[in-house]
Amino acid sequence: MSTLPIRILGVDPGLRRTGWGVVASEGTRLSFLAAGVIAPPETLPLGQRLAALHAALTAVIVEHAPHEAAVEETFVNANARATLKLGQARGVAMLVPALAGLDVAEYAPNLVKKTVVGAGHAEKRQIQAMIAVLLPSARVAGADAADALAIAICHAQHRGVRALALKVSA
Amino acid sequence: MSTLPIRILGVDPGLRRTGWGVVASEGTRLSFLAAGVIAPPETLPLGQRLAALHAALTAVIVEHAPHEAAVEETFVNANARATLKLGQARGVAMLVPALAGLDVAEYAPNLVKKTVVGAGHAEKRQIQAMIAVLLPSARVAGADAADALAIAICHAQHRGVRALALKVSA
Repeated sequence: MSTLPIRILGVDPGLRRTGWGVVASEGTRLSFLAAGVIAPPETLPLGQRLAALHAALTAVIVEHAPHEAAVEETFVNANARATLKLGQARGVAMLVPALAGLDVAEYAPNLVKKTVVGAGHAEKRQIQAMIAVLLPSARVAGADAADALAIAICHAQHRGVRALALKVSA
Repeated sequence: MSTLPIRILGVDPGLRRTGWGVVASEGTRLSFLAAGVIAPPETLPLGQRLAALHAALTAVIVEHAPHEAAVEETFVNANARATLKLGQARGVAMLVPALAGLDVAEYAPNLVKKTVVGAGHAEKRQIQAMIAVLLPSARVAGADAADALAIAICHAQHRGVRALALKVSA
């Protein structure tokens, strides 16, 4: 397996707040590159909020040039209206890296937590604590950016197996 | 009120099939311009399906140069997974006209049906029948394109009132 460094973009989508994080993965080594939160003004019409999310995520990709992307398989909420809103943001979060030609992986929240914390039902503060351990140089503003870094780390751990599975099924 | 012709794009979003239709509205006169259905291959990964929807809707806007857009306020399904999928397609359907600088209106399905058929609980075949009456020159391939034309017609009827309401609230 190649040990060339790979930059991975993780995205935790939401209509109000979308977390993003970029890590470099080289063999078994991980390092922090950048992270942030995108929060378009809630007073804008929906189309413009989605356009603001599109523009901000596009800027992240242009600036940090990730090779691959991973998006959380959104938690399916009991509230249908909330699920629809999340779906709209998630559609844009999946679209933007695909438009940039990146492969976009999806991971279930439980797998992300299990990979990063070791337990499928970890709390947000446990994820933040493990991000501080795994990426000591990370400057993370809030839980959404920490979750996005966790998704990127999850992809770094699973991408080899995933690529093999895609090759076998092709 | 101006009687200059306005071209309106209506979109009925869905991950499997997204209907679209363009009408011209001049005073009280409506005319059919174009309609179709976008159905990205279901075998593609989600990001690429959304990218295909983005590309096809962008092409519709480039070809037919609508001045305004309207998207159905998606039916909130009891099935959360289906709602999430619909949300993802709807996010892209709202995004593309917003990126093109169009105002994107949203209308509830019941208002669309009431405007076009006269009853809020009309069936799909009633909508198709009324489209044939209101837009006699329409060449419509299927229910999704008919629904999209109904959304465009709904916006043609309500855009004056809507513009006034936006002005009052501004």
